[in-house]
Amino acid sequence: MNFDVRPIGYVQSSLHDRAQAPKQGFEGAPESRIVFDAAYRAALADVRAGDEIIVLTWLDRARRDILTTHPRDDRRLPLTGIFSTRSPDRPNPIGLHRVKVIAVPDALTLVVADLEALDQTPVIDVKPVLPGRGDA
Amino acid sequence: MNFDVRPIGYVQSSLHDRAQAPKQGFEGAPESRIVFDAAYRAALADVRAGDEIIVLTWLDRARRDILTTHPRDDRRLPLTGIFSTRSPDRPNPIGLHRVKVIAVPDALTLVVADLEALDQTPVIDVKPVLPGRGDA
Repeated sequence: MNFDVRPIGYVQSSLHDRAQAPKQGFEGAPESRIVFDAAYRAALADVRAGDEIIVLTWLDRARRDILTTHPRDDRRLPLTGIFSTRSPDRPNPIGLHRVKVIAVPDALTLVVADLEALDQTPVIDVKPVLPGRGDA
Repeated sequence: MNFDVRPIGYVQSSLHDRAQAPKQGFEGAPESRIVFDAAYRAALADVRAGDEIIVLTWLDRARRDILTTHPRDDRRLPLTGIFSTRSPDRPNPIGLHRVKVIAVPDALTLVVADLEALDQTPVIDVKPVLPGRGDA
């Protein structure tokens, strides 16, 4: 049985293609915005500037039929099972991004640092980083 | 536009209902198993005993129409927007679990510690924890 994922918002970023994007957000992603659908205003109400959050995205420009890859697209590295990599190409192309909230300019918008997602990437969930865990 | 999530495997656990489950995996979850569909054998091939991984699940017994909740189901805590909580009830009920691989008894099975998911929960992705990030 499959399940239906619904975007809750979209990324606004100056990154427009994968060649341009850093491999990880902390490797130089530009400041970007997440703009949420008005239906989720109450769900977002307690996210504040300064919060560390985990953003899940649906990597809509990724491939779903890839099972192995060279990590970081470096062909000198051995072919590796996708579940041991952070490649966007994977059976369910869900991106996991730990980002910092820089500002909350209005009730439906977050300005964030370290988000390496491309412009117009659908956002599917936001979670707090757990204190003392740093993760996940 | 919505997206179609496909289970890649299922959790096998002695946890059968939410009342029984710890709020977080590191708060006393039992050892459990993830059994993968044979189609994903190559994707899983480099996951080893000792690895710290992030498991994404589809929390199929959660509600999707909840936008605020009392954290940890404690009514003394103020109502909080779902995106500032780890509640399973959320618009896209995706569970994020940092777990340790205890053993890999065969090419389609992981034995893991600290997974607080209920028995038969669909698994939708596995990612490595990034060195030095601890997360996410």
